[in-house]
Amino acid sequence: MSDAELQTIPAGHGRAVRLPAGAAIEIVNVTGTQVIDTWAFLEGTGDGYMSLPHTRVETGRMVPRPGEAFLTNRREEILRMEEDTSPGIHDTIMAACDAARYERLGCAGYHRNCADNMNEALADLGLPARECPQPLNLFMNIPVHPDRSLEQGAPVGHPGEFVRLRALRDCVVVMSACPQDITPINGADRAPQDGHYRVVPAD
Amino acid sequence: MSDAELQTIPAGHGRAVRLPAGAAIEIVNVTGTQVIDTWAFLEGTGDGYMSLPHTRVETGRMVPRPGEAFLTNRREEILRMEEDTSPGIHDTIMAACDAARYERLGCAGYHRNCADNMNEALADLGLPARECPQPLNLFMNIPVHPDRSLEQGAPVGHPGEFVRLRALRDCVVVMSACPQDITPINGADRAPQDGHYRVVPAD
Repeated sequence: MSDAELQTIPAGHGRAVRLPAGAAIEIVNVTGTQVIDTWAFLEGTGDGYMSLPHTRVETGRMVPRPGEAFLTNRREEILRMEEDTSPGIHDTIMAACDAARYERLGCAGYHRNCADNMNEALADLGLPARECPQPLNLFMNIPVHPDRSLEQGAPVGHPGEFVRLRALRDCVVVMSACPQDITPINGADRAPQDGHYRVVPAD
Repeated sequence: MSDAELQTIPAGHGRAVRLPAGAAIEIVNVTGTQVIDTWAFLEGTGDGYMSLPHTRVETGRMVPRPGEAFLTNRREEILRMEEDTSPGIHDTIMAACDAARYERLGCAGYHRNCADNMNEALADLGLPARECPQPLNLFMNIPVHPDRSLEQGAPVGHPGEFVRLRALRDCVVVMSACPQDITPINGADRAPQDGHYRVVPAD
């Protein structure tokens, strides 16, 4: 783990970080339960983004293992999964929560959500709103059963575990500390927590 | 099965069909081996499309079962999986093949691909090119193993099986008879075949 300063993503909110090629970001599971929806967008290309469907074709896995790269929608390597001290249970197939999701769950009025958090965080860097791609849902546990049903599982990680993602191209990494408090995806107590990260400069 | 006329998608090519709400399309696995990448776009909204990540959150399954609906990226119901006479093995997590995929597989020169087929088919209807969403890969077999590795499996269907998709909103359905001839995804003989479909008018 880097000794760079730990930054906080307030519970239910998002943060965006410019990550030049060669730098890395460590996303830390301080509580052991909080899901962090994560996206990466290429700098300066307009529409290039980290694409989990393209990554799966290349790696032949639901989630890249340490040493494997995430690809963009143009199949360029954008981030490397450099280290993962967690059990490696991350989701790559469920859409980010959004206003419509909470409406369907019966919420009256606005509920904070990861899709809006992504665009709020981009706006904080002066970047325009965009369609929300499939996120890398770090520390999120979606078991795929043999009958191909999916479960909204409680998290299986432990406090202090982290993943280190290394930028292979200049990009913007966006994270959302998921505000989901209706399903147990952020832990059985349904109490979303802060997220945490460190930026590790290039050597 | 409808007695509407069977239409052909030439091997390795795409076709697009306008499907008004209430009409249906039957996509037929005539040979038992041919994968059909399938997309649906809302008419008149600019950017609404069938989204498998949003559909999975709603259905809690990798693939909708008969009676369940596919959602758009705005979580509106767009198509219903009305009938499926196949074993129900369809892929929803692998990106469409594209020019970059065949480059990475070592092909010299242009190889036909599903992403370009999608845009060619849209152009045939006078519709603009667009980003290629995660397709519904009908009859495509991607086993998810317990260690969460993925396999490019040979198809498990049988000749004549079909799925019937009912439009719940006015939409454009695009299909590509996948040109993949390097992996066994279209059968062990790696010989892409024609695709077939029928349009069933609303009652």
